[in-house]
Amino acid sequence: MIPIFPQVEKPTLLLDEARCLSNISHLAHKAQEHGVRFRPHFKTHQSAEVGEWFRPFGVEAITVSSVDMAAYFIQHGWANVTIAFPFNLRQMRAVNRLSEAARLGLLVESLDTVDYLRENLRNQVDVWIKIDTGLRRTGISWERVEQVLSLAGEIRSAGNLKFRGLLTHAGQTYRAESIQDIQETYRQVVGQLVDLKRELISAGFPETEISYGDTPACSLVEDISDLDEIRPGNFVFYDCTQLRLGACEETDIAVGIVCPVVAKHPERSEVVIYGGAVHLSKEYLLVEGQRCFGFVALPEDIGWSKRLSGAYLASISQEHGVVRLEAGDLQKISIGDLLVVLPVHSCLVVDLMPHYLSLSGKAIEIMAKYG
Amino acid sequence: MIPIFPQVEKPTLLLDEARCLSNISHLAHKAQEHGVRFRPHFKTHQSAEVGEWFRPFGVEAITVSSVDMAAYFIQHGWANVTIAFPFNLRQMRAVNRLSEAARLGLLVESLDTVDYLRENLRNQVDVWIKIDTGLRRTGISWERVEQVLSLAGEIRSAGNLKFRGLLTHAGQTYRAESIQDIQETYRQVVGQLVDLKRELISAGFPETEISYGDTPACSLVEDISDLDEIRPGNFVFYDCTQLRLGACEETDIAVGIVCPVVAKHPERSEVVIYGGAVHLSKEYLLVEGQRCFGFVALPEDIGWSKRLSGAYLASISQEHGVVRLEAGDLQKISIGDLLVVLPVHSCLVVDLMPHYLSLSGKAIEIMAKYG
Repeated sequence: MIPIFPQVEKPTLLLDEARCLSNISHLAHKAQEHGVRFRPHFKTHQSAEVGEWFRPFGVEAITVSSVDMAAYFIQHGWANVTIAFPFNLRQMRAVNRLSEAARLGLLVESLDTVDYLRENLRNQVDVWIKIDTGLRRTGISWERVEQVLSLAGEIRSAGNLKFRGLLTHAGQTYRAESIQDIQETYRQVVGQLVDLKRELISAGFPETEISYGDTPACSLVEDISDLDEIRPGNFVFYDCTQLRLGACEETDIAVGIVCPVVAKHPERSEVVIYGGAVHLSKEYLLVEGQRCFGFVALPEDIGWSKRLSGAYLASISQEHGVVRLEAGDLQKISIGDLLVVLPVHSCLVVDLMPHYLSLSGKAIEIMAKYG
Repeated sequence: MIPIFPQVEKPTLLLDEARCLSNISHLAHKAQEHGVRFRPHFKTHQSAEVGEWFRPFGVEAITVSSVDMAAYFIQHGWANVTIAFPFNLRQMRAVNRLSEAARLGLLVESLDTVDYLRENLRNQVDVWIKIDTGLRRTGISWERVEQVLSLAGEIRSAGNLKFRGLLTHAGQTYRAESIQDIQETYRQVVGQLVDLKRELISAGFPETEISYGDTPACSLVEDISDLDEIRPGNFVFYDCTQLRLGACEETDIAVGIVCPVVAKHPERSEVVIYGGAVHLSKEYLLVEGQRCFGFVALPEDIGWSKRLSGAYLASISQEHGVVRLEAGDLQKISIGDLLVVLPVHSCLVVDLMPHYLSLSGKAIEIMAKYG
């Protein structure tokens, strides 16, 4: 074991491998138990090495959020990749290139896009119809049964498109007020999708599957057997957002950003850390009406402590973070010490960082942002 | 001239060189006219090539926000660099290395940091005392005259530290309600600093200078002759935040992010673009009570149109952006078309992007985030 903290000079993304493996194991077993395909979303970790940790659980199919991310994971041996983003016509050439090497899944919601694919696609791909089940971001509203049936027919009529089914991201679970809310949202959304699937089967599409995303519901719903596939991503690390939703315990959070203390202001119970928006993103939670850009813990021999009661990252600018602390904790901290920030949104922090530092002292690759 | 828009496949950062040069020229001349050193903050553009555009205006000294950024610009020929961030003890080795090659300026606010520098610094550096003039982020409060005098004495007593003066960032101008507010904040802050400088001069520090940052005041205050140095950064590109403050005109905004349209939802007057938090950051403005992640314009033969009335980026997730448009504009837009987003905070967008695409079709380097 290499002691990791003496080496830290600037904001560094720590990864607790044991917690991460436990998170993977938990959802992989839940999916298996209910006969549901586990197609994890790799946008959260963006790492070939972390990706390998899924293989012992039988994972062969993955989800990504961009064509670049598909290219990266295909290069690292993944042969079945859903790009869970509305197909972007301007990346047709890249998609044609990737479809030589892997089975791609694309998302469509309009006739225009299907027509474009029919004309320009070189190899067969899987196609999912994106269904809006209440998030109102993308997709055909679940109520528009005729539109879905008609689009499925168009997809089938194009020889290079293989219709796979209905795909949704029920991101409204992130606005839930309680665990019961999340479970209720899941029940409604899946009810809508099961009805729509039944319509498609009656209309001659017996192959129709349901693919469902979002970590809160995948974590909190016991019985997911109405689904054919789940695509959660964030669960691999969890974060303060999931903690607040009740989707994880604090000891499930597998990443923390360790940051040097550069100034102390006891008169207002604050310290300033080297760690700002370019490391942590500007994502925040409202906690008792105050913005919170992360909870705060102390480094320990291996890993970090429980979060400090009453401590939080209260504001951030480009490189600075201002941490509020209880007076007793503040006294124990000196300039040059380290604090660990538990991220509000782990996906965005990972996207900003060059690599992980594992608790055993190993650097773990994150996909270069622009290859 | 290479037509740039046919090449765009994914979110791409456009740079209007003419606007950028005009912004540089304007502030360089204002500084010159008032006998003030212009030490621009390069954290906004983070580009060696854009940095070169300052040299014809006689700029020789610059500001950066991190040790890594100092290393990058020193490597590109800048020999006088202030690192405008509280000195981070854990980067002592890197600072010692850089101080071989360039005249560094460091910021201190505590005796602990001065003691540490006295013990560990290998070459002489310039030292500024960070003064808190009301932002309450870092620095010694301007009212604590004795503390400032005592710290100046400690700095002078260390042979390797050259005391330079008082440095402030009056970032509270970003919370101003009007141009008059900004000008009034400037008057108060500079009044405080001039008094403090006078105290230092009386106490035997005749070399004391005042270094002042923040784009809103540097842009909007006519007479800056009480200062010795200005360190604005954002003015090089400006953005929607500065536009709303009245610190720039819309035609001063020199960067835009061009994004493909991937879905249309006429029933709610929205289109979805490929362009999300990983391209634009989560910085937003409140406009009439609604979150706005950027104003929206159309691409033109060279550059972009005036912003579309009533159009704005209403929400973003990791890769998606949802743009609200007036119905008439929505009708003219098809899937595969491009929209240009004017950023809320240009510094954070630049930090997320790999390079600029100039309006003449040239790729312009941005510092690699982790060298």
